[in-house]
Amino acid sequence: MVHGRVSRLSVHDVRFPTSLGGHGSDAMHTDPDYSAAYVVLETDAKDGLKGYGITFTLGRGTEVVVCAVNALAPHVLNKDLGDIVGDFRGFYRQLTSDGQLRWIGPEKGVVHLATAAVLNAVWDLWAKQEGKPLWKLLVDMDPQTLVSCIDFRYITDVLTEEEACEILRQSQVGKKERGALQPQMILKLEVPRVQTVEDGFVSAEEQMLAHGYPAYTTSCAWLGYPDATLKQLCSEALKDGWTRFKVKVGADLQDDIRRCRLIRNMIGPEKTLMMDANQRWDVPEAVEWMTKLAEFKPLWIEEPTSPDDILGHAAISKCHNRVIFKQLLQAKALKFLQIDSCRLGSVNENLSVLLMAKKFEIPVCPHAGGVGLCELVQHLIIFDFISVSASLQDRMCEYVDHLHEHFKYPVLIREASYMPPKDAGYSTEMKEDSVKRHRYPDGEVWKKLLTAQGN
Amino acid sequence: MVHGRVSRLSVHDVRFPTSLGGHGSDAMHTDPDYSAAYVVLETDAKDGLKGYGITFTLGRGTEVVVCAVNALAPHVLNKDLGDIVGDFRGFYRQLTSDGQLRWIGPEKGVVHLATAAVLNAVWDLWAKQEGKPLWKLLVDMDPQTLVSCIDFRYITDVLTEEEACEILRQSQVGKKERGALQPQMILKLEVPRVQTVEDGFVSAEEQMLAHGYPAYTTSCAWLGYPDATLKQLCSEALKDGWTRFKVKVGADLQDDIRRCRLIRNMIGPEKTLMMDANQRWDVPEAVEWMTKLAEFKPLWIEEPTSPDDILGHAAISKCHNRVIFKQLLQAKALKFLQIDSCRLGSVNENLSVLLMAKKFEIPVCPHAGGVGLCELVQHLIIFDFISVSASLQDRMCEYVDHLHEHFKYPVLIREASYMPPKDAGYSTEMKEDSVKRHRYPDGEVWKKLLTAQGN
Repeated sequence: MVHGRVSRLSVHDVRFPTSLGGHGSDAMHTDPDYSAAYVVLETDAKDGLKGYGITFTLGRGTEVVVCAVNALAPHVLNKDLGDIVGDFRGFYRQLTSDGQLRWIGPEKGVVHLATAAVLNAVWDLWAKQEGKPLWKLLVDMDPQTLVSCIDFRYITDVLTEEEACEILRQSQVGKKERGALQPQMILKLEVPRVQTVEDGFVSAEEQMLAHGYPAYTTSCAWLGYPDATLKQLCSEALKDGWTRFKVKVGADLQDDIRRCRLIRNMIGPEKTLMMDANQRWDVPEAVEWMTKLAEFKPLWIEEPTSPDDILGHAAISKCHNRVIFKQLLQAKALKFLQIDSCRLGSVNENLSVLLMAKKFEIPVCPHAGGVGLCELVQHLIIFDFISVSASLQDRMCEYVDHLHEHFKYPVLIREASYMPPKDAGYSTEMKEDSVKRHRYPDGEVWKKLLTAQGN
Repeated sequence: MVHGRVSRLSVHDVRFPTSLGGHGSDAMHTDPDYSAAYVVLETDAKDGLKGYGITFTLGRGTEVVVCAVNALAPHVLNKDLGDIVGDFRGFYRQLTSDGQLRWIGPEKGVVHLATAAVLNAVWDLWAKQEGKPLWKLLVDMDPQTLVSCIDFRYITDVLTEEEACEILRQSQVGKKERGALQPQMILKLEVPRVQTVEDGFVSAEEQMLAHGYPAYTTSCAWLGYPDATLKQLCSEALKDGWTRFKVKVGADLQDDIRRCRLIRNMIGPEKTLMMDANQRWDVPEAVEWMTKLAEFKPLWIEEPTSPDDILGHAAISKCHNRVIFKQLLQAKALKFLQIDSCRLGSVNENLSVLLMAKKFEIPVCPHAGGVGLCELVQHLIIFDFISVSASLQDRMCEYVDHLHEHFKYPVLIREASYMPPKDAGYSTEMKEDSVKRHRYPDGEVWKKLLTAQGN
């Protein structure tokens, strides 16, 4: 089925001037311009299908990731797509373990973001050739093939290939057949409408198609928003049926107290509130600050300190690779686990993390937002529900209401849930015109802005 | 004293075709071309002094680091050097916490290597303006100023600014005054010739100037060397007075056993042997392999697994930032600690790690080799002996006999010890002609090689 030789890899520096409106601002990133290194793969196949891959960045530095994608290109060009996905573990290893390039990583920072962009494009192309949305490609894959996409290097002390296969096989039963989800599983779900499903028996895939995957919103309370904006957005979100909210904290304690009180008062005591400090604190500072914010009953406080501080971490963290996640699980330092479609090495590495989370029974609540992170990660978490975790307890996927209009297959949110994408591919493709206009620094949008700034 | 406004920052992609001879080869890096992103800082000061900074790379990917240096340049250009070093902590924070750039790090991988190159140039320029070798600049600095160069973010749970000052103040006593090193300290030293120092009483600085800092050699046993080469180099090294050797392992167990036996037989049972697996193994694999190599009595086995695997690590590790080192110390997972002049954020971050190592009483054995790593790190470890650790017990600095000829102030090794540099600066400056000839891809050396390869 999969076919074609990669004949071209192009990469674009695409930036959106989000800093102008304070969107996306937090305690460590005060003026982000949400951006992406955007990869386009072409093959010599007659179908004319292209693979699109992105990795998310914050503006400056996108050019560095673009440079790293170009450094990886020789590993991709002229390869047969069938050979790539036929030995996906080997291909992953080749990208991440190039004997010269790995020095400037390995598997972290710029090169790992670039790896994600390239591999996301490969997955998009594969799914398109199969005519399926990515989540469905994964769901339909047999355990052995799926596991052959994962590089187990550095995690075999916690998860072997055999164990991974076994986890997938066990959940096979409940994947598609009606009646496979046990009533006690349904009862565990915190989403009320699931209780309305006819006699509580439905396959995991059907449930996703009917009700989607529960989401929470981060759109209301960026740090740079004045209180009036926060109030207005929060009130709109409540009207739209949102029940779970995340607020950015960490820059000024008195501000945080005021903003958290405001939002808790608006949403009432029953709805869910999360907080995100975006790595702002030292460990003692985090403890002090979190004590002060406890009265607002956050479900979690995200990234209280350095993402590298495994021992200093608590509760929840987005990490840069499977090795860090492995340790957080080993150390029982996680209450929730955040995967990321672009910071980890694409679908491949995320699969390994989802399987480890299943083994340790830690709920996965993906990181999203940015540029396209919602579009991508919905595929992974829907796959996770159907084929791995089979549970929605304490689980939800982040949602941010930005920049979806630039995507050809934007997310569809219904009643605060992600509805499974139906178009073939990984939902990574952007509108041609959007890319053209936002290319940095020569796209129309940036030309105007830079001229206005006198650059 | 310090003066001038930074008027120019240029950065060069300098590569040496070391892969042609198998130099530097190990289990994960089979064909490294030892390279550097090489930064030159100029100011508008009349003295005409320039600051040179390097970070070490392995060939491909150097252009990505160069790109990242350019992304950092706006933080440096037009800044007054006095303002930079006058608030060095603030400047360090500015480079590492740029609200957009930190997303592609933070403080790891490409951007952190670039940060090191830029800051190494600043330190070189500062030392040159003061007319002192870097180690002496540090030794003469009062504790308060020295500590003001360190960013304590994310490490205050282990080391506060006050504690750091106190550590430095305590060792002030023994720094320069004759008779300050206590006899019991001298007795601890494993270097025999120290016992010949007149009545055992000498200041730490005098001791360094007279005898230098003990080194070990990694030059004999790269993985790509045939046994004959290994034998010859080992025999020469023994003649030159080397007593401590490191051998690369990890690719093939039978090969490792043969090579380790060969080298242990040549050096005899008394001399010191270290092994380095360069992140080749998973945790269970490491345990199995190390058991098999134990009969050759290695002092340590370096980087058995992923550098991100804090819990899986044992004995010794080079890490990418102070936060990782902090945890290895907290977890008591280190027996020896390896600093690196280019992977960490320059002198600033290395100071924080040296002070934490002192607090936990873990011996520091720096990583060196590559391009210029020996030239740079000798300054840090000599400073450490004089001003921080005051001990040589279980301590030694790596040495590799490569590429020193390209440096204007190359290391001086005498009786297997690093002799303290006497020239002003950080020994980072390369010969102009070497840079010109090895610039990639347009330097003479590469033009020839690439033509021969038909590129």
